Order: sequence, then C-alpha cells, then structure tokens
Amino acid sequence: MEDAKAAICSRLQSAKLNSGKSYSEIAEETGLTNVYVAQLLRRQAQLKPETAPKLKASLPGLSGELIDEMMRPPLRSYNPNLIQEPTVYRLNEAVMHFGESIKEIINEEFGDGIMSAIDFYCSVDKVKGADGKDRAVVTFDGKYLPYTEQKSEDMVSRSKLR
Amino acid sequence: MEDAKAAICSRLQSAKLNSGKSYSEIAEETGLTNVYVAQLLRRQAQLKPETAPKLKASLPGLSGELIDEMMRPPLRSYNPNLIQEPTVYRLNEAVMHFGESIKEIINEEFGDGIMSAIDFYCSVDKVKGADGKDRAVVTFDGKYLPYTEQKSEDMVSRSKLR
Amino acid sequence: MEDAKAAICSRLQSAKLNSGKSYSEIAEETGLTNVYVAQLLRRQAQLKPETAPKLKASLPGLSGELIDEMMRPPLRSYNPNLIQEPTVYRLNEAVMHFGESIKEIINEEFGDGIMSAIDFYCSVDKVKGADGKDRAVVTFDGKYLPYTEQKSEDMVSRSKLR
Amino acid sequence: MEDAKAAICSRLQSAKLNSGKSYSEIAEETGLTNVYVAQLLRRQAQLKPETAPKLKASLPGLSGELIDEMMRPPLRSYNPNLIQEPTVYRLNEAVMHFGESIKEIINEEFGDGIMSAIDFYCSVDKVKGADGKDRAVVTFDGKYLPYTEQKSEDMVSRSKLR
Amino acid sequence: MEDAKAAICSRLQSAKLNSGKSYSEIAEETGLTNVYVAQLLRRQAQLKPETAPKLKASLPGLSGELIDEMMRPPLRSYNPNLIQEPTVYRLNEAVMHFGESIKEIINEEFGDGIMSAIDFYCSVDKVKGADGKDRAVVTFDGKYLPYTEQKSEDMVSRSKLR
Amino acid sequence: MEDAKAAICSRLQSAKLNSGKSYSEIAEETGLTNVYVAQLLRRQAQLKPETAPKLKASLPGLSGELIDEMMRPPLRSYNPNLIQEPTVYRLNEAVMHFGESIKEIINEEFGDGIMSAIDFYCSVDKVKGADGKDRAVVTFDGKYLPYTEQKSEDMVSRSKLR
Amino acid sequence: MEDAKAAICSRLQSAKLNSGKSYSEIAEETGLTNVYVAQLLRRQAQLKPETAPKLKASLPGLSGELIDEMMRPPLRSYNPNLIQEPTVYRLNEAVMHFGESIKEIINEEFGDGIMSAIDFYCSVDKVKGADGKDRAVVTFDGKYLPYTEQKSEDMVSRSKLR
Amino acid sequence: MEDAKAAICSRLQSAKLNSGKSYSEIAEETGLTNVYVAQLLRRQAQLKPETAPKLKASLPGLSGELIDEMMRPPLRSYNPNLIQEPTVYRLNEAVMHFGESIKEIINEEFGDGIMSAIDFYCSVDKVKGADGKDRAVVTFDGKYLPYTEQKSEDMVSRSKLR
Amino acid sequence: MEDAKAAICSRLQSAKLNSGKSYSEIAEETGLTNVYVAQLLRRQAQLKPETAPKLKASLPGLSGELIDEMMRPPLRSYNPNLIQEPTVYRLNEAVMHFGESIKEIINEEFGDGIMSAIDFYCSVDKVKGADGKDRAVVTFDGKYLPYTEQKSEDMVSRSKLR
Amino acid sequence: MEDAKAAICSRLQSAKLNSGKSYSEIAEETGLTNVYVAQLLRRQAQLKPETAPKLKASLPGLSGELIDEMMRPPLRSYNPNLIQEPTVYRLNEAVMHFGESIKEIINEEFGDGIMSAIDFYCSVDKVKGADGKDRAVVTFDGKYLPYTEQKSEDMVSRSKLR
Repeated sequence: MEDAKAAICSRLQSAKLNSGKSYSEIAEETGLTNVYVAQLLRRQAQLKPETAPKLKASLPGLSGELIDEMMRPPLRSYNPNLIQEPTVYRLNEAVMHFGESIKEIINEEFGDGIMSAIDFYCSVDKVKGADGKDRAVVTFDGKYLPYTEQKSEDMVSRSKLR
Repeated sequence: MEDAKAAICSRLQSAKLNSGKSYSEIAEETGLTNVYVAQLLRRQAQLKPETAPKLKASLPGLSGELIDEMMRPPLRSYNPNLIQEPTVYRLNEAVMHFGESIKEIINEEFGDGIMSAIDFYCSVDKVKGADGKDRAVVTFDGKYLPYTEQKSEDMVSRSKLR
Repeated sequence: MEDAKAAICSRLQSAKLNSGKSYSEIAEETGLTNVYVAQLLRRQAQLKPETAPKLKASLPGLSGELIDEMMRPPLRSYNPNLIQEPTVYRLNEAVMHFGESIKEIINEEFGDGIMSAIDFYCSVDKVKGADGKDRAVVTFDGKYLPYTEQKSEDMVSRSKLR
Repeated sequence: MEDAKAAICSRLQSAKLNSGKSYSEIAEETGLTNVYVAQLLRRQAQLKPETAPKLKASLPGLSGELIDEMMRPPLRSYNPNLIQEPTVYRLNEAVMHFGESIKEIINEEFGDGIMSAIDFYCSVDKVKGADGKDRAVVTFDGKYLPYTEQKSEDMVSRSKLR
Repeated sequence: MEDAKAAICSRLQSAKLNSGKSYSEIAEETGLTNVYVAQLLRRQAQLKPETAPKLKASLPGLSGELIDEMMRPPLRSYNPNLIQEPTVYRLNEAVMHFGESIKEIINEEFGDGIMSAIDFYCSVDKVKGADGKDRAVVTFDGKYLPYTEQKSEDMVSRSKLR
Repeated sequence: MEDAKAAICSRLQSAKLNSGKSYSEIAEETGLTNVYVAQLLRRQAQLKPETAPKLKASLPGLSGELIDEMMRPPLRSYNPNLIQEPTVYRLNEAVMHFGESIKEIINEEFGDGIMSAIDFYCSVDKVKGADGKDRAVVTFDGKYLPYTEQKSEDMVSRSKLR
Repeated sequence: MEDAKAAICSRLQSAKLNSGKSYSEIAEETGLTNVYVAQLLRRQAQLKPETAPKLKASLPGLSGELIDEMMRPPLRSYNPNLIQEPTVYRLNEAVMHFGESIKEIINEEFGDGIMSAIDFYCSVDKVKGADGKDRAVVTFDGKYLPYTEQKSEDMVSRSKLR
Repeated sequence: MEDAKAAICSRLQSAKLNSGKSYSEIAEETGLTNVYVAQLLRRQAQLKPETAPKLKASLPGLSGELIDEMMRPPLRSYNPNLIQEPTVYRLNEAVMHFGESIKEIINEEFGDGIMSAIDFYCSVDKVKGADGKDRAVVTFDGKYLPYTEQKSEDMVSRSKLR
Repeated sequence: MEDAKAAICSRLQSAKLNSGKSYSEIAEETGLTNVYVAQLLRRQAQLKPETAPKLKASLPGLSGELIDEMMRPPLRSYNPNLIQEPTVYRLNEAVMHFGESIKEIINEEFGDGIMSAIDFYCSVDKVKGADGKDRAVVTFDGKYLPYTEQKSEDMVSRSKLR
Repeated sequence: MEDAKAAICSRLQSAKLNSGKSYSEIAEETGLTNVYVAQLLRRQAQLKPETAPKLKASLPGLSGELIDEMMRPPLRSYNPNLIQEPTVYRLNEAVMHFGESIKEIINEEFGDGIMSAIDFYCSVDKVKGADGKDRAVVTFDGKYLPYTEQKSEDMVSRSKLR
C-alpha cells in the first residue's frame, strides 16, 4: 500500500515539476493555502470535487486517473525519520518546548479544550522582521473544541443500549 | 507536578472508597456516564460548575479544596506502562488490529474525516450475549469531524497577515 | 510472508472496489458486522465455511482461490506506524486516557477479569447526537472473562505431571 | 500508586519470609499452584473469599488489613527491565523463537483461536530428565478461545443501537 | 537538577496563581508575547535585565531570589510524555503530517535553509473563523537561516589551524 | 541473508502443505515434538543426520538440497512485530506477569540457577479441563543450570593466561 | 524517494572514485572544506551556481543531469543505524558526555543562545599532537545565535493578526 | 525492591572501601576470580556457604546480616543506561560487531549450540602486548551447550501428560 | 549511586558559583581546557594528583573531601533526555548528518581507523567570523587509532591459551 | 549501500563454502585469529596488502575484484536484531551484567581509562573445563587507553586557534 502511495506521489510531483510552478503559485491560482496544495500533491489531503477543475487548470499534466485517485480519502502518514530533517526538527522542538505553555494559554483564553488538527489551516508566509530580515511564519489555525461533559442523557448511543 | 496530581487522585479515590459507592452508582446520581465519573476522580476531566454540587452531594467526603482543584483544566496523561494491564492491552490490540477497517468505514459512511476524541462519550455497559453470558460493552461515541479544505479566503488569520 | 499477505489483500480490495459496494452494504448482505467484513478483506479474520457462499454472492469477483485463502487462519498483524493515522490515533488516545477507568468499572461491575478481544464484536454506526449532528459510534463488545483461581486440583495438565 | 503496591508486596514477602515456608509448601497447604501463590504475594492475583482463611492459616503473619487488600482486584503490572533477569529472558526467548510455531499448531489442532491468559494456569515443577538430571517444567495451560464470527444478529449491543 | 527546576517552577506558578492574572494579561503588561511569559514562568526562557522590573511590577509576588534565578540561562527541557497531552499531540501531528510540505515551501520561497527556532516568536491568539466560531491560532515565526556554503577561506577557525 | 532464509522457509512450508499433514502428524511419524517439527520447517532448529531420513519419509516432497540446508546450524531469529500476534502476545504477557514468581520458585526448588532454553523441550498439547472444555497446554521443559561459583582454580582458560 | 536519493549518491560516488581524487583534494581545487565536499557528494548540501563549474572542473565525470540534481535543496537525512559505526559513535559519545559542559560554556562566554548548525562549518584536519603522533581534529564552527526575547511589538506577524 | 538492593550494595562497597583492598586482592585471598568478587559485592551473584568464611576473613567489615543477604539468590539486573559508560560500550560494540562471527566459529568448532552465560567464568587480566604496552584481557569462558533435538520419547514431562 | 553523583556535582557547582569564576577563567588558572574544567566539576573526568593543588587554588571552596572524591575514576554518564537541549541537539544533528563524511575523510587521510574519544581534547572557543560576527568553535581533537590487524602471533593472551 | 555490502558478503561466504575450510583452518593458514578471518569475510575489517596474498592462497576462489573490495576501509555495522540470536544475546547479557565490575577492575588495575575496541584482538578457543567438558573461550584483548588530562598546552589544535 505504501509503495502504491509513493508511486502516485512521485507522479504528482512530476506533474508539478513539469509545470514549473511553485506551491504558492498553484495556491494563488486555486484559492487554496500553499501548504494545502503541497498536501494534496503528497496524498495527505482529499481533493474536493469543486476544486478538481481548478487544480486541473493549474496543473494540466494531471491525468484523469490521478485526479480520481486524489479524490479518495487518503491514509495520512509520514516516515518517522522525517524528524531528522532540520526544518521539521525545529518545528518539533518548538512544539515540545512550548507545548505546555500553549496548552495552558488555550485553557485560559478558551476553557478546557484543544485546538483541532482537523478543522485546521496551515500556511507558510514570508514576512520582514523588525530588523528588515526575511522571516518564515508558519501558522497553525484550528477550531477550538471544548471537551464534552459526558452526561448520560446526552449520550444517545448509550441510551439506546439500555 | 506529576506527584502533585497523584497525591490529589489518591485523596479523590479515598473519598470514593469511604462512600462505598461504585462509579456506576455515582454516575446514576449525577447524570454522568460511569467512565466520566472515573475520569473526574483521576483528574482526567474538568468538573463543571453546575455539576459540582451534584458530585458533592454524591460524595460528601470531597472537600471544597478538592472540588476547586477538580474544576481546573487538567493535564491529561497516563503512565505508558498502563498498556501492560491486560484489559487495557486488549483494547489497544482491538484498536490496532481493527483500526484501518474502522477508518475506512468512517470514510465510506461519513466522508474524509475522523471521530473526535474531544466531543466524545465513553461508557462501559453490562449486557447479556446471545448465549446469555455477561459481556462488557465499551462504547466510543465521538462527533464526526470532516477535514477542512484549506481555502485561503476562509483562513481569516492568514488573510490578516497579508 | 508479509508481502504475500499484502498481495492477497490488494486483490481482495480490488474485488470490493469492482463491486462498487461499501463494507456496510456487504455486511447487510452477509449478516456480518461492517468491521468484520473489512477484517475479512484484510485477512485479519478467518472466513467460515457457511459464510463463504454468502460472501461469494455479495462479491462475485472473489475467485475460488481467494476464497480458499480466506478460509485459512490468518496471522493477525498491523503496521506499527498505523498509529500515525489520525482516526486510529484518537482511538488509541481514548484507550490510554480512559483505560484505567474502564478497567476499574469492569472490576466493579463484573469482578476481577477482563473484556475478551477474541469472543468480541466491533461495529461502526452512524447516529445523530443530541444536537442533531452526525456521530460515529465504535462499539467494542467482548465476553467478560474472569481470572481463574489457579487451584491445583483443577489443573488437569499438572496433576498428570505428578 | 505503584509505590503503594510495592510497599504492600514488601509486607507480604516479609510475612512469607517469617513463616519460613516456600511457595510450594504454601501451595500444598492451600490447594493452589505454586506460581499462583507467588502471584498472590505480589498482588498480581486476587485472593478469593473462600481461599482467604486457608492462606491465613498457612501464613498466620498476614494481618487482616493485608488480607483485605489482597481481596481487591489488582492492577497487574511488571517492571519492563524484568526481561534482563536471566530466567525471565530465556522464557521470553522461547516465546519469541517458538511463538509462530505454537500459534500454527494451536490453529491445526483447535482451529482459529488462541490460548487464553485469563482462564489460565501456570506451575513450575521439578522432574528428572531422560538422563536423570533435574529439569524445570513450566506449564502454561489456558482455555482455548475460538475467534467469534461477528454476525450482526448475534451482536446484541448493536442490535439495540439500531 | 531536574527536581530543583521543578521546585522553582512550582514557586513561579504559585506567584502567578496568587496574582489572579492570566498569561495574556501579564503579556499585555510587560510587552511580551503570551507564550513567552509562560515560558519564563517555566524556566524555559531567560529573563532579561530590562524586562525584570516589568515582570516584577506585574507579578509582585516574585521574590528577588526567584528573579535572580530567572535571569540565568535555563536548561531547556520537557517531559517526553508531554506528547500524550491532547493539545500537544495535535500540534505534533500537524508538524509531522505537514512537515515535508512546509520544508519544501520554505525552499521554494526562500532557498535552501530553515526557519530558526532560536530567533523565534510564538503566540497564541483567539480569532473568529469564517463561520463565526472561535479558533486558536498558534503562530511560529522564525528567522530564515540559509545553509552556509562551507568555503575554506570563510572558515576562520580552520585557516588558523593550518 | 534474511531473504534467503524466508525463501527456504517458504519452500519448506510448501512441502508440508502438499503433504496434507499437520505438524502433530509429522511429529508422530518422526518421533519429534510437534513444536520441534514446526521449528525445523522454519529453519529455527538443525536437522540431525539420523533424523533426516525419517523426515524425508514423512515429507517426501523435501528435495535433497532442502534437506542439506536444514542440516546446517541456523541463525535463529524472529520478526519483532510477531508480538502483535494475539497468541504470541498472551504467552509474552504470561512470561512478564508471572516471570518473577517463576524465577523465585526455581530458586526455592533448585537453588540459584535458571531453566535452560537450549537443553529444552517445547510441546503443545490438547487436554480437557475440569469443566470438560478444550485447553491448550504449552510445556516449557528445560534443564536446570546452576550458576557457577567462579573459582580461579577451576577457570582453566585463565590459569593458562598467568 | 529515499531509493532515488541513494541511487543518485551512488552515481556521485562513482564519479569521485573514477577521478581518483580524495575529498581533501577536491576541496583544495574547489575552495570548499573537505567535509562539505563529502556532503555535496551525499546530497546533504546544495551545490551553489557559482561553485558548480569548479566542481565540474574537479570532477569531470559529473553529468549535467547530476549537477542539476545537486543544485536542488536536498532532504537532509541519515540512517539511524549509522550510530553503530565506531567513528560516528565516538563523536556521539563526546557530544552526549561533554554536551552539558559545552552548553554552559557557551552561556558563560556568549550569553543565552546556541551554536547554529546551519550557519556552520565542519572540517577534518590532520595535526601532530604534543607527542608527535597523528591526531584527527574535527572542528564544528557555528554562528552564535542568541535566543530572542519575544516582545509583542517586535513580532510583526502577530501585530498584523490583531 | 531496587532501592533495597542499591542500599545493600552501598553497604557492601563501603566494607570494601574500608578494607583498602582491590577486587583482585580479595580474589587472591578467596580463590575467586576478580570479576566474581565484584559481582558478589554488587549482589549479582550468590555467596556460597563454603566461601562465606573466606570472604568474611578477607573483608572483616561485612556484618553477619550482610553475609546472610549475600547468600540469597539475587535478582540479577543492570541499569540500561550503563551502556553509556565508555568501557561497557566498547565491550558491547565488540559483541555486536563480532557476534555473528563468534557464533559461526562456535558452530564450526562445536556444532549447533551456544556458549553458556550461566556455567560461565569471567576475569580481567593485565598482560603486556607484543609492543610491551599494557593490555586488558577480558575472558568469557562458558560451557558449550548443544541444542537438544526434541524427541518425544526423551521429553519426560510430556509423556506423562498423554 | 546516581543520586550520590548528583549530590556531589551539586556541591561542586556551588563551589564554582561562590567563586564567581567562569569555566574559562578556571581553565586559564589551571592550564586545562575550559571543557575539561566543566567535566571535572560534573564528575565526568578524574582529577589528577598534580592538578589538584592548582584547582584547589583556583576554587578554594573545594573541601578536601570533595577533592578526594574528584580523584576517583568517575562513572561517566548522561541523562538521555539531554539531547532535547537545543545546543546539544544541534551538535548531535551535526554528528549524524556529517558523520559518514567525517568517517570517510579520516579513512582517506589516515587509513582504516578512528578518532579516539579517550586520548581526546575538547574546547569551546569564541572567534569572529568572516562577517565579524561571533562564532562558537567546538573542537574535537582525538588521537588517530588504526584498527589492528589481528595476527595470531601478536595476540599474546591467546598464545598463552594454547 | 547496505545491499551492496550484503551482496559482497554473500560472494565472500560462497568462496569460503567452496573451499570447504573452516574459519579456524583459514586462520591457521594465514596467521590471523579465527574471528578476524570471519570479520574479513563479512567486510567488518580491512584486508591489509601484505595479508592479501596469504588469504588468496588459502581461498583461491576469491577473485581479484573481491580482494580489491576487501582492501577498502569497510563501514562497520550490524543488524540490531542480531541480539535475538541466542549466542549473541548471552554475550550481551554477560557484558551488561558484568560490565560495571569489569570497568571498576580496569580502574583498579590500570587507572582511569578503558580497554580499546580498535587496538583489539578477539578469538574463540575450545578448551576442556575442570570437569573435562568442552568450553568456549571468547577472549577480548584490547590495549589499555588512559583518559587524557586535557591541558591547554598539550592541545596543539587549540593553541593554533588562539
């Protein structure tokens, strides 16, 4: 299965390479975030029917077969060794070093809950810092999801069981 | 911090022990699921203000200080060795052996998304099987969360950035 | 061996794909749970002789050779990286976070024992929550197995040894 | 919690040490297997009400408080480093080296199922080998549990759900 | 050493608790980001001399001894089990699932280099999504650092060696 | 190397499959234990010269080349993921949960030493339990090996060194 | 992807082998450090446009296609088992044994910050020790990067968000 | 339990320290190997009754209580981080790098079997190398144990079972 | 044991803190490298008799008891979580990413051998880079050790054995 | 790369197999230790120019191409699962159980240093024990390497830096 996924991603990357476009350019043309475009071309996200024509327009090299494949729910995954990659490691370092602080601030600002990774946006932007130097900004933007108080009367599935 | 949490849980368990009530009995009295009651008494869930009086009524041994502590958002955690415990292991075995099937059925029935573990209910029930023998039923009931298609125009945080 | 298993699963999945049926539809036609159908098509469960004709009727594309293969006891397994998959992870999170509570409630309701993962049913259902939104319900339903008190006189194998 | 368990085990071991009896002698007096006696004194098994007086008779040093503690369902566990212990390692080596063969023979002799570790007996015996030398015999004796065919009509919990 | 750090953090958290202020409020008063304030109160960042009076003003309960301690370069660290915490896990999931895409976009937009985790800002913000619901925005903002081409003539330390 | 071993095992399994015999039947015909037969057909044990003709008689499909290969000392091994297999896991669970007790009983009954995994027998038997139900009995039977007291005069290799 | 990288590295190593030159000789000819040359020929560094002609001159066997490949930002990686290699292990041993001391000295000499691994040079040199014997000198030379004090006013990306 | 062991070892080491004797000197006085003496003083080996008086004579500071403790079968163990220690690591490196070769030579010289770690001697000696420099010689001397051919008729324990 | 080491290190660090001197200053006064001074004050290196008076002169707060302790061969060690510390991680990243290149250059320049981590120097220096900015230089300087060709006649220990 | 190494080892093993000689016989003919011969035929050691003709004479089946390959410095490595192999495991068990004792005796006999694994010999010998039974003797013979006291004046590489 994994080999099959890798083979498809390789073909998707070729289509992009042949187009000569960057992820941000394709994003511009399709109205998606740049990271989401990259996820689509790695089979880490599902291509929606209404977006398919826009992507096809932006990357004409995508065959109908590839488009069909991209419209199936993917098995999201990653190679665990990816953490060795310096950019990925530094993001992981930030998450682990700042994680408890982020959690507590979410609790203070929103209540007992989390930031969703499903109803979620991610983008990479280039900004100038206060010193005029280039900075990369990675934004993680997720819906706040409060923990449910598990009341019996609200648990429909169980009330049927009894 | 962990020692502090363990110390509080130990006092919460004592209050339950002294009451002579089971988790299911407390659940009955408070209108919560039995698993959620157990989570509250392990500091794995936050006690809501409107529920506090009910729990206090069910477990009079809970001091005001403990009630206050239970109302703070907890740091959810577990001892990794917990997987050695035979009941926990068998649940884990089921998740790992059945996981890919469960995921695909969710995809087929709902679309590309997941079952939330936050907007989530869990209960343990006792039923008679077809052969009349006792069976334990563990129900995981979570809201379906569809993956967001990450369109730039919907990403408010980023549109401000640019 | 693993490659052989993967090759067979790939052929089983193709048969399903060609049929255009979902796991739940096949389940309906065969009288099995939807998760069990998916397990059969992953070689994680053994096809029983009396069920084979029903499955063959539901999925005519299954060759006799594949049916024969499905009737052998499988080597149950999973790829450890499967835990990366978001739906599987959230189920695992639930098991580890709720595990000790589930165990204690089983102890209180049934006694010292476990919920079997062998005499076991699993299904995925779609229900409406109290707020009318779709929810996925994963049910783990296993026979309660009490721990044996290991009396010498009951241990037939050892009494022969002496 | 673990410290509490360790403290109790230490007191249980002291009671045995003071009695001057071996596990096999206590087993003889109580009608239990020798391994099960050792498990009771490590809080890895629950002392049953009808057995408590026999154990108390065999180990008079056990206080009523300890007996009460032993009658609660234990949290079964082990220190992962235990595998370093040479006897434990060799048993583990045998399980991992012989495991696939044992599984296949169970399949051939019984069908698709497992040997239970819950409805289970374990003993250590001393026998003379063909060469007259001492041999240790560790017997694992578990009920055969066939995998359930998960038919919808037999899954009582789910039929209620629908 | 670790115990010493935990003890200090516990005292720092008490000072905050007594003040009744949230991290964001202290951030407002001191001109720092909210996450950075939380890092200071966990000894994951160094308090700068010019900021010390502002923090002291905002949290009068901080003793001079604690302020002195906060001004020493900390040993940054985290408990590896922190990844169990649901908010932290979801951030980690995002990093690992999106990591390769983020890296490639940085390469396309900036060149061969990384986003620094040292010359780095992190904040948590609350925004309204397109649907009017609350969303948490975690921003990682780091300086772009290009990989050095390692020319001998530019490597001062080595030129001295020869 | 591992691929080579897998290829040979695959051919050995085919020979058994073609014979239509179970491991226990071959064991009966060759005078070996059933587990040992299975180990031979996995290249986890060495075929002895005097046993080769008996095995050849029982499994005529074994070519001379395969018989030769089976007579070489094997590199004993296993796939670490084998522990996922439910039967193997339950054996492992038993070893880790009962291990310290087994060790102590061996010490009490035999002295300071271990049960060998080399001068070792393993079999799987089918017995009726006290309740008349089928039970699997896995017997581990190993020679007791006392730890040597390491006296200089007995250490021939070292006395030569000096 | 990884196989693709390995295939390219194999071709790059062949080009070097055919040239009969050592890394240090190529370094001499191209003005790069010897370690950087080796990294280029492992696709662990990006070949810069102005350096490409020099490398081509030094290693004429490099095809234009390989040169093009070398100019793309690489996915930096390593085989985790590389730590088994004795030279690599001893470097790792030094890092882990000396690491805390190195960190504290950097703090004392520079302030709260780190030594960059991006704006970084590495070389291997051969020197004579005080006893006249050959010694290998591995130099790690990185820019000092001070930790940023995260002031809100300096965080441009966030100020836009609000 | 582990703390108890550590406490006893600490007292044993004190007794040695007070005696001012090295392990090799105690070995000389007691007729044991130097490594075995060190193992005794770490509770990694059992003190035999006939050796106890000799050890008491060599280390008069050992109390009767400590001697009694040393005569019980120990729970052999080690701290997994011990592999960080440079001498231990280099021994481990040698075992892993040379292991397959050692195994094959044992097979060629002795047959299909192993070198026991139970009927085993270990010593450290100081010799002059061919160049007159000091060398440490670690000798592992274990009884050759051939793998048993598992014939049913020789397996006494099983023959009783049937 | 580890607690004992930590307690001593804590006292050694206090002595340094009270002196108000940096590692580099103590290094200057004692003629040692700065890293080695730090290792001595962490009990990762042995204080030599002739150096003890110099260190005592530089750090008068060191008691005679501490000096005695420092003169014993230490058990070198580290906390595995140290790799989380950003400076240590970046050194580790460099070792793993550059490791194979470093090894090959040592082979080309010296032959088949390694850089010793025992006959080894380490220092941290502050230099100005080509751009005038501060850089940290970590130097690893170890004796080249060629692998021995293991000739029987040169192996004195074995020639005695035969 | 690893596949390439495995392919060469396979050809080297074939050359030995065809010769019908054991490692010890080849060792006898070439003047090397038996373990070193085995290492050469696994590409874990470098064949020296003066030894090449002797090996070629002993194993005429070695092609010139293989001889050339054997003369290159190898990338020493091992499969981590090798520890499963019973002989290798028992050696590892000995190293980990006896390791701290061996280290301390080296310290007492030689001073603060280690036994080298580079200037190192290893052999397997067959001796008769005191009871006349066969014993395997594995000898690890390494040069004693004292830890360097890191004096600034002796660190040539650093003195140049300043």
